[in-house]
Amino acid sequence: MSDSTIPYKIYLSEDELPKYWYNVRADMKVKPAPLLNPKTFEPMTPEELSAVFCDELVAQELDNDTREIPIPQEIQDFYKMYRPSPVVRAYCLEKKLGTPAHIYYKFEGNNTSGSHKLNSAIAQAYYAKEQGLKGVTTETGAGQWGTALSMACAYFDLDCKIFMVKCSYEQKPFRREVMRTYGASVTPSPSETTAIGRKILADHPGTTGSLGCAISEAVETATGLDGYRYVLGSVLNQVLLHQSVIGLEAKAALDKYNVVPDLIIGCAGGGSNLGGLISPFMGQKLRGEQDYHFIAVEPASCPSLTRGKYAYDYCDTGMVTPLAKMCTLGSDFIPSANHAGGLRYHGMNSVLSELYHEGLIEARSVEQTAVFEAAELFARTEGILPAPESSHAIRVAIDEALKCKETGEEKNILFGLTGTGYFDLFAYEKFNNGEMSDYIPTDEELEQALRKLPQVPEENA
Amino acid sequence: MSDSTIPYKIYLSEDELPKYWYNVRADMKVKPAPLLNPKTFEPMTPEELSAVFCDELVAQELDNDTREIPIPQEIQDFYKMYRPSPVVRAYCLEKKLGTPAHIYYKFEGNNTSGSHKLNSAIAQAYYAKEQGLKGVTTETGAGQWGTALSMACAYFDLDCKIFMVKCSYEQKPFRREVMRTYGASVTPSPSETTAIGRKILADHPGTTGSLGCAISEAVETATGLDGYRYVLGSVLNQVLLHQSVIGLEAKAALDKYNVVPDLIIGCAGGGSNLGGLISPFMGQKLRGEQDYHFIAVEPASCPSLTRGKYAYDYCDTGMVTPLAKMCTLGSDFIPSANHAGGLRYHGMNSVLSELYHEGLIEARSVEQTAVFEAAELFARTEGILPAPESSHAIRVAIDEALKCKETGEEKNILFGLTGTGYFDLFAYEKFNNGEMSDYIPTDEELEQALRKLPQVPEENA
Repeated sequence: MSDSTIPYKIYLSEDELPKYWYNVRADMKVKPAPLLNPKTFEPMTPEELSAVFCDELVAQELDNDTREIPIPQEIQDFYKMYRPSPVVRAYCLEKKLGTPAHIYYKFEGNNTSGSHKLNSAIAQAYYAKEQGLKGVTTETGAGQWGTALSMACAYFDLDCKIFMVKCSYEQKPFRREVMRTYGASVTPSPSETTAIGRKILADHPGTTGSLGCAISEAVETATGLDGYRYVLGSVLNQVLLHQSVIGLEAKAALDKYNVVPDLIIGCAGGGSNLGGLISPFMGQKLRGEQDYHFIAVEPASCPSLTRGKYAYDYCDTGMVTPLAKMCTLGSDFIPSANHAGGLRYHGMNSVLSELYHEGLIEARSVEQTAVFEAAELFARTEGILPAPESSHAIRVAIDEALKCKETGEEKNILFGLTGTGYFDLFAYEKFNNGEMSDYIPTDEELEQALRKLPQVPEENA
Repeated sequence: MSDSTIPYKIYLSEDELPKYWYNVRADMKVKPAPLLNPKTFEPMTPEELSAVFCDELVAQELDNDTREIPIPQEIQDFYKMYRPSPVVRAYCLEKKLGTPAHIYYKFEGNNTSGSHKLNSAIAQAYYAKEQGLKGVTTETGAGQWGTALSMACAYFDLDCKIFMVKCSYEQKPFRREVMRTYGASVTPSPSETTAIGRKILADHPGTTGSLGCAISEAVETATGLDGYRYVLGSVLNQVLLHQSVIGLEAKAALDKYNVVPDLIIGCAGGGSNLGGLISPFMGQKLRGEQDYHFIAVEPASCPSLTRGKYAYDYCDTGMVTPLAKMCTLGSDFIPSANHAGGLRYHGMNSVLSELYHEGLIEARSVEQTAVFEAAELFARTEGILPAPESSHAIRVAIDEALKCKETGEEKNILFGLTGTGYFDLFAYEKFNNGEMSDYIPTDEELEQALRKLPQVPEENA
């Protein structure tokens, strides 16, 4: 069945692992817009950011110029425990589809956190340790990021305080227990441990929480405790930087076999995976060395790129964070209750938003039933049960491979398989029972959510 | 941190993957005792076995002479989707323990079934397909084997009917949904679909089922349907044969770096993993080429090797299967209700039982609280959340590494990490909450269970 020259899985050796992260901002002509202070509308200073974030991460967040940032040896050592992740040639899927296309996927799910989130979690934990901090705080929804962070903190003996949206804490106990096994404290949010939590509980007795509220509690806890900072798993430019390890490895693996991808496809929520996967390829494109076609895939129920506005907005629903210029649906936007497949963030990382704004990335939205159909087909042929998030990319990869079947083109398709779906079986159960439905927000709903955009003066926007 | 010559993970290339399974029976001076007909006490004939099992698998079951059995190309192709599995040097665990020992583990959990069970599932599905069958039936408890089989059947477009013990079906819905995603039909057992199921339901209304009952239903269904056979994921010699791929890969990987393991440690339930891991090493030992020390690790609550009897017994609690000569606690034995960590089978594969009887394998039993302590330490240092089963081997590997710390010996320790614990979080939760307890059966309990051993005439035993 296999092409004689290309193996099923391309693994780099440990010597070939990236020694630096690639900062795509260095190659952008128009830099991403700076974070703004939500009160003054002036760019956030390093000092302002350092009250919340680790110093070195603030520096990375603001650095639009350094192309290559060395990966500290301790992080390289940790990466060796679960990296390199393979680039897999999807021979069985190609055969099943009967397509002349060559499909490759970069698989980031073979670690206990189950996703690519660990790539940035270990970096953030490292810099917190380096700074001599006692611990970090964060929020988590379904728990992918919280799991990754708890693993990273266990490795560096850092305290890890996680605020988990209460409904997930109660209904999805498994990820909670993984985090606890790694020694993290997991608090259902809203909680009595913070002022904002107590206020929300008083105002809304019996609430099951929201990500916005959990962020607020995590930030309050970090800033109120000596030796703690807040960390975040997506959306920020520093996260994109750390995730560039995905793209760097993918490119090195394909280069070994002289494979140049025609299409590079990634799912897009806050942008951490998509940005990491495409970064080095985008760098080539920006430098005029090689052209690639990039496709960002988002859920039709949360379409920040395809139907959002490119404007300054709050990063959280609580409106306490700095403003970021991004493709946004409004910080008030909440995906429909039937939405099962992750990628529920209202905005998109600033770098990706700018690149999309410049027409360098195509974006598509897909409906969740079609996404789970793709997930099922992929699981049955390639043997990996994919995360619902990742399955958005699978959907478009399959669509494109079927187009090649019609045209006869032997395109090279690369997509990011960000993780596994082992903790998403409730969504699969819904799909298996035929109870999954689709929802596309109306124009009115989207307009409604955009009404609360902050009014940033023209000269700062 | 790392030894300069040995990487964190040793991967074979696809060219180096085993092309044959190794049949350790060929090198045994005393062959394992044959399966007996439970009525006549005569050795089961191929014809008798073929009513229940696939023809080629019957041939493999009875073949005590062929040393190398070729792995069909289609199975090799499937193996390439998730194999080779790495041999990992546990640098971080060694550092944490401060031991001079070198610890290696063969990690079989990086596939959606989450364990080594897939190695035999795909082989059994292949031979069923080759025979022109429509489908297979099996039973599953917690669901590891059922998941593996459903993946294998999806790949070969075979129907897959799984009887899942009712309490697992209801309380552990996630693995059930993985199986359904792979297209298997999953029936809670006892069910109304079989005569034995209906009888049990009539006799014991409201029963939550047992593995023995599920086996009986699966066998009844297979033999009653045209074009179906029954398949089994452990205990049988054919399964040990397929699982030899674990040991063959492990040996090839260590040979690359001239590493000779002093200790080889595996957890032992029915014996599929332990047998597979040690087979090629045991072959060398039997042929007098190299000495190794093997340690089988079993739960103190289900101690078939350390406290069982080497005798003919039924393979199931329903007493409908052929008799196997094995180390057994009696087919009536059921581990205490507080037992959380898998490995709950009353007997042990015949090959391993014979080798243990000859003193070629050491056996140890460990208590489950100590097992989960080892699991937690391993997860935090090596980044992988281990299956409770695998953690039995981790426990003894750590114990041995700590002994080396005292003596200063630089032993090479190899253990089998059979799978991940992502679907075992209820057990971890119990541990995290401090609610886990240990139980060691009394001598009286063990004597009681052994009273129902079949009375095989001296000349057949």
